[in-house]
Amino acid sequence: MSYPKIPLAQTVIQLCKAKNIKHIVLSPGSRNAPLTIGFTHDPFFTCYSIVDERSAAFFALGIAQNTQHPTALVCTSGSALLNYYPAVAEAFYSDVPLVVISADRPKHLVGIGDGQTINQKDVYKNHILYSANLKLDIKNLPKTSGDDDEPAIIKSIENKLERFLGIKQALQEENEEEINLALNTAIHKLGPVHINVPFDEPLYETVKELSVNPKVITVDASPKKVDSVDLKLCLEDWSDASRKMILVGVNPPNEIEQKWLDELANDNSVIVFTETTSNLHHKEFFPSIDKIIAPLTDAEFTELQPDILLTFGGMVVSKKVKAFLRNYKPKQHWHIDSKKANDTFFCLEKHIETTPNEFFSEFLPKITHFKKSNYKSVWKAVKQKRNDLHKAYLAEIPFSDFKVFDTVFKALPKQTALQIGNSSAIRYSQLFNISKSLQVFCNRGTSGIDGSTSTAIGFAVANKNQTTFVTGDLSFLYDNNALWNNYIPKDFRIIVVNNGGGGIFRILPGHKNTENFDQYFETKHNLTAKQLCEMHGLDYKTAHDQTQLNEQLSTFFNASKQPMLLEVFTPSTVNDEILLNYFSYIK
Amino acid sequence: MSYPKIPLAQTVIQLCKAKNIKHIVLSPGSRNAPLTIGFTHDPFFTCYSIVDERSAAFFALGIAQNTQHPTALVCTSGSALLNYYPAVAEAFYSDVPLVVISADRPKHLVGIGDGQTINQKDVYKNHILYSANLKLDIKNLPKTSGDDDEPAIIKSIENKLERFLGIKQALQEENEEEINLALNTAIHKLGPVHINVPFDEPLYETVKELSVNPKVITVDASPKKVDSVDLKLCLEDWSDASRKMILVGVNPPNEIEQKWLDELANDNSVIVFTETTSNLHHKEFFPSIDKIIAPLTDAEFTELQPDILLTFGGMVVSKKVKAFLRNYKPKQHWHIDSKKANDTFFCLEKHIETTPNEFFSEFLPKITHFKKSNYKSVWKAVKQKRNDLHKAYLAEIPFSDFKVFDTVFKALPKQTALQIGNSSAIRYSQLFNISKSLQVFCNRGTSGIDGSTSTAIGFAVANKNQTTFVTGDLSFLYDNNALWNNYIPKDFRIIVVNNGGGGIFRILPGHKNTENFDQYFETKHNLTAKQLCEMHGLDYKTAHDQTQLNEQLSTFFNASKQPMLLEVFTPSTVNDEILLNYFSYIK
Repeated sequence: MSYPKIPLAQTVIQLCKAKNIKHIVLSPGSRNAPLTIGFTHDPFFTCYSIVDERSAAFFALGIAQNTQHPTALVCTSGSALLNYYPAVAEAFYSDVPLVVISADRPKHLVGIGDGQTINQKDVYKNHILYSANLKLDIKNLPKTSGDDDEPAIIKSIENKLERFLGIKQALQEENEEEINLALNTAIHKLGPVHINVPFDEPLYETVKELSVNPKVITVDASPKKVDSVDLKLCLEDWSDASRKMILVGVNPPNEIEQKWLDELANDNSVIVFTETTSNLHHKEFFPSIDKIIAPLTDAEFTELQPDILLTFGGMVVSKKVKAFLRNYKPKQHWHIDSKKANDTFFCLEKHIETTPNEFFSEFLPKITHFKKSNYKSVWKAVKQKRNDLHKAYLAEIPFSDFKVFDTVFKALPKQTALQIGNSSAIRYSQLFNISKSLQVFCNRGTSGIDGSTSTAIGFAVANKNQTTFVTGDLSFLYDNNALWNNYIPKDFRIIVVNNGGGGIFRILPGHKNTENFDQYFETKHNLTAKQLCEMHGLDYKTAHDQTQLNEQLSTFFNASKQPMLLEVFTPSTVNDEILLNYFSYIK
Repeated sequence: MSYPKIPLAQTVIQLCKAKNIKHIVLSPGSRNAPLTIGFTHDPFFTCYSIVDERSAAFFALGIAQNTQHPTALVCTSGSALLNYYPAVAEAFYSDVPLVVISADRPKHLVGIGDGQTINQKDVYKNHILYSANLKLDIKNLPKTSGDDDEPAIIKSIENKLERFLGIKQALQEENEEEINLALNTAIHKLGPVHINVPFDEPLYETVKELSVNPKVITVDASPKKVDSVDLKLCLEDWSDASRKMILVGVNPPNEIEQKWLDELANDNSVIVFTETTSNLHHKEFFPSIDKIIAPLTDAEFTELQPDILLTFGGMVVSKKVKAFLRNYKPKQHWHIDSKKANDTFFCLEKHIETTPNEFFSEFLPKITHFKKSNYKSVWKAVKQKRNDLHKAYLAEIPFSDFKVFDTVFKALPKQTALQIGNSSAIRYSQLFNISKSLQVFCNRGTSGIDGSTSTAIGFAVANKNQTTFVTGDLSFLYDNNALWNNYIPKDFRIIVVNNGGGGIFRILPGHKNTENFDQYFETKHNLTAKQLCEMHGLDYKTAHDQTQLNEQLSTFFNASKQPMLLEVFTPSTVNDEILLNYFSYIK
């Protein structure tokens, strides 16, 4: 096997291997040649080559979203790693493990006007779990300040050599520790880390044997036990409260044991609000939160106000539930998470620093009886009413975004992984009851439109079942370099709901239907996905009305020779009205 | 006229106006609505709407490259501003004035799990001249720690109101100072600055009258005088030296007064090496540096080694001249620049902190006689020889990148602004004598391929004459969102030299013609610009050989109804050989 000659490159690669980091997304460059050579020559790694680093980083994020284990990104020096930044921030806020490995010039060539050189050290400072700034391998005897300044004993060749080897060894150990620390952080804290690796020329030399055998440092990462006093207090408060609300944000599928979900579902004093991205399902739970709470009056909000709010999972999409819980604060808010607790509702009382499963396994078995309460039954009746009216409304409205999302979500085959774009698409999805056989994902860390397609494709590459990506037109066009990708699975599907601009802005309180609005908010356009599909070898389908949509969807998910894209054209001016009327209709 | 109701938005906009910042590049969003409303309703400003913030920022950079005055960028909160970062770094290293204005959530909504919210404060820290982190307008009486804790006198309504108004006024003044400081820095220090502006809802309200009249702070920015003792020392050393080399990097057209150029051209002890991007021309000067020095032997390098190296302008493209001057260091290196001096050759002796014109006007008139020297005449003979062999070589070689660049550069109409992409294109351009009627630009700050097309289009929008962009295929494909732009002038031209991958990697010392090389270095592809042109309304032309190329170019620059793109397909495998043989041929 060929290895890069530079020991530091070998060290980085060997440690990735030791930590079972298999997926490596490379972008072309010269400074990173030692890493590219090393990763691509070792069959242990699955390597991907993606030119646009912005897309490459979201692609890697998608893989890691699927595997829940770090994907590594490798790029050259200069602005390359700045293009990773949107995905790094997304990974930071959505707890996705990513390892950014950026090649750099040696320190003495930074800041002196050399080409393709920026100040890479700590460049992601605001949004990174750990930054390892490695030091250059030393190849030669380091220059001293001048022989005359040295004590006589150091002047001997033996001493110099010994000192040199000592420094070299210390540097190597320091670098190994830094790499271990970065990788362990990504693996156990689930988030982005940055390893900046300086390389000196020559960059392309290879050797047949490894010259390093880096030390692998492991850490104990079993979930923390809940403090017994805390647990006792929690149990007391929980038993006393007759209105307990659980709100679950972004959460990977199959994360929570079914028996705990059943246990929670059995308690009439507990309402479980599940966001579309929570991947939690139970007939006793309350999905599509916005449908339930958007039409509420003040009196009803007061009735819904919980005594205790228990949250877990990542970011919450529903603006309405956030506004509700800020205005009608629970007496206590507890958040379960090993890493962090956001004070989203300005009443955070407890950060339960462990995993939900760990907490539930300690907590739920100790509950001996349920508080008598009509909290859930009242709201189940509301849920039922809303669902009935929702159905009735759908039967009345014309072809529109609302109708399309309903049709699409119903048409998805079982076991599909559903990737959803920002922002209209994910907001619409919150209004529909999504089948429990689907897995749902969306980049809600920063809620950007900058990399949803790339993320979906990365996810699809790592996913065993079919992946379908549903998105709006602006988001799709923004990240069109996602399609410049040689790894898109044939069964991957994209559905673009094209309403000719940023539909989300029609729903916001701006001044509609002025030239100014069209140009600077909605950003009207006449573009379609047609040429992009032709360019990148995707089968392109369209639908302009309900009949065409039904027809296309009837075969859209079948096996095919190419990945497919269905572009659904909706009339932009009716969409916002239909959405607004919906909330009064289901009241 | 309509103004945003929020005073802080008014303040930012009024100060931009006072500083004559006219070009405003907006990306759609909701948090930035107060700024979007304000800028777009005031006819003083020329506003552009561009969805992809990465492209928007490079587009703004192009405008500023042309006007040499700041262009403002306005975006929403979240990952939007991270997408600006590649262009911000480019502006930082290439001294282009850019004002990034990012809308943000109020501080108490940052870091608590709100959507589309990141840690925006100081996010560009490594590559920004100034970051102004503005404070939220206060609308209401601030809450105190509780009435009981307050002295009785503060409890009166009048006192509370007075204190409130005092705080409000102080905040407003502080924000005004920060904005002034940021804008003045961008204007006078020529580089990127960041103004982060928190806004609370409601965001869309407007008023008919301004509620603020912000203070405009000006600074004296006339170039510094050179210290008279320094000047005297410079004059002595200069007069004594018989080998003086001037090396000019990136430099805007018409920056240096002709009389100083003539003066330098007259001195036989002075060689002026001009890079393609220096926009300096004189028959006594030495353009296409690589052509002169690449074939030199050690003995010749020693003969060329200068006593004094004087540099001005920005980044230097030629790796060869950097290697030469590091190995054959001048006794002294002086750099003229108002802002900074890179120690590119590890022998920087003097940073002359003023503009080149200011320095020359103080320095050159005081030179009373020229040192007798054959320095220039010897190297003029070399230059002549190389030019003759260059011509002969061109007559011999087949259709290839080399041939295409020669043909294209010769075909450009007079007064064209030539924008060149990274990296092959700009490196090739250094081998040809570019007509002095052309103006040449390239993003050499970070040498990225991430925004050259967007930059060229921004430049073209602000430019009076025709702008032509010459680029390689990877660079063009990378930044294809550049074409998602409603402002491309009809006379704008793009020439894509498509060799099916990253041709630059064939010139570097990697292992060619292995599967690994094709995939991870050269990044081979079969894509063309055809569909992108169709999608975005550009007239698309192709050439596959010399005859077709000549034919296309004969009409390519004529007036047209649409912007045009010419894609020239070259055989990837002969390009590197032709380039390598060139250097031995011209020896």
